[in-house]
Amino acid sequence: MNLTFKIITNRNQNRTTTMTIQIKGLYMSTCARRGFTVAEELGVAYELVPVDFAKGEHKSPEYREKYQPFGQIPVLIDGDFQVFESRAISRYIADAHGKADNTLYPKDAKKRALVEQWISVEQSHFNCVDAIVGQLLFAPMFGGQPNQQIVADNDVKFKTTMAILDKHLSTHKYFAGEDFTLADVVYLPYTDYLLKTKEYSNSLDNYPNFKAWWERCSSRPSWQKNSLLFFFVSRSGSRCIIDARGKYMLVIKPRVKILIVDDCDVTIIFLA
Amino acid sequence: MNLTFKIITNRNQNRTTTMTIQIKGLYMSTCARRGFTVAEELGVAYELVPVDFAKGEHKSPEYREKYQPFGQIPVLIDGDFQVFESRAISRYIADAHGKADNTLYPKDAKKRALVEQWISVEQSHFNCVDAIVGQLLFAPMFGGQPNQQIVADNDVKFKTTMAILDKHLSTHKYFAGEDFTLADVVYLPYTDYLLKTKEYSNSLDNYPNFKAWWERCSSRPSWQKNSLLFFFVSRSGSRCIIDARGKYMLVIKPRVKILIVDDCDVTIIFLA
Repeated sequence: MNLTFKIITNRNQNRTTTMTIQIKGLYMSTCARRGFTVAEELGVAYELVPVDFAKGEHKSPEYREKYQPFGQIPVLIDGDFQVFESRAISRYIADAHGKADNTLYPKDAKKRALVEQWISVEQSHFNCVDAIVGQLLFAPMFGGQPNQQIVADNDVKFKTTMAILDKHLSTHKYFAGEDFTLADVVYLPYTDYLLKTKEYSNSLDNYPNFKAWWERCSSRPSWQKNSLLFFFVSRSGSRCIIDARGKYMLVIKPRVKILIVDDCDVTIIFLA
Repeated sequence: MNLTFKIITNRNQNRTTTMTIQIKGLYMSTCARRGFTVAEELGVAYELVPVDFAKGEHKSPEYREKYQPFGQIPVLIDGDFQVFESRAISRYIADAHGKADNTLYPKDAKKRALVEQWISVEQSHFNCVDAIVGQLLFAPMFGGQPNQQIVADNDVKFKTTMAILDKHLSTHKYFAGEDFTLADVVYLPYTDYLLKTKEYSNSLDNYPNFKAWWERCSSRPSWQKNSLLFFFVSRSGSRCIIDARGKYMLVIKPRVKILIVDDCDVTIIFLA
């Protein structure tokens, strides 16, 4: 039996600038999504250069030598300039291509310091969410079993961290104050995927201020444009993931045939 | 039997600016040392406002409410402005008080992006060293036992990370190129303490480029000024730590009497 899905995704919108940066990665990549969101917020044109995860392209010696020594995505390419690490990429897009008065990554030293403070908190404290998502979402996606001990250990840190973030957001519209900034962007991808796990799908109910912040941020067009992720499992166990743009997909087990009509029109056929 | 040590440390040097920022913390704090080093590099006057670790001041509700919700040090205070997280503090000192043409945290977007890239690598990958130091240095200091499983787990990440950093430093004098930058500063404190552990005291011998980088950086006056740490254990088991300035000390077990003659002249008496 064949199961067929057809997905129509939106074409890229017109951009407000003609400069095009490239981001090597995947649309579904948590870290790459930070860069896409920043570019969307600032009206900076960009294109995705897909990395073939299924074939382990990012772990190849060539990729490590040329793009990223740790074998990770994303990598930003801007002419003859390259930079990796998603937070560095996000800052670079804003500094190099954002308008001088953009509030996403303010130039004023004090305002910027508060943005940096909360970016750093995300990397040092909110990384418990990365660990939970890795076990509960990504491990099953790739056919593995979640390590429940890792989930339990990180859940302790999650509760402590969320209580502090929720209190902060009770008196701040966004992490660094009244404006949506890079400090908000960095928290979005893992929060999104956390809510896609069965176990944590309602986890924000205990943190109403964080939940309100999430709803404010995740409704922004910049985020909506890269917020879709389709994950299919056929009855025979074949799996594939299609990202929001339908431009790149990951076939986790064979017996899936994917037809790309153009950049936006995808047909998935599970071969029984 | 009494054991007596007398430590004479240097008074603060004259500063090149009259602006004084305050850093709440300890001279021995790995994270606070980043801020001190940046201030020293840029000639920014600063003073330490000690936090009483022994009494758990940093974990008190008052401290969390007023200074740092996670109960950590350091916190920078600049007039009526405050910021926490050591990397954010370091960036702020450079942005707000560094000369416009300082190379420590360059304003050029591409140069800065590479600094940010390696700062982020430190936080995401080099944090294995934080974990090892926590077990092998800090746990025994506070009378605990190292968790060898944590050490072993992080040693795997350490070897992978160090091989990549060593290769990078084979063609780069400093992390972000030819200049000493914030990207170098962030790696210093935990590298220093790693080398103070018995198990890793020779660990850089396998990474000659990293070792040469360490020798280049750690010989800088900005680092030398906060690189001393005295740790005393008496025969009866009393313990204390005196930082480089002799301004603040941590008595880990009682039966230690510490006399401060002034900011720089300290006598320690272990009471038998």
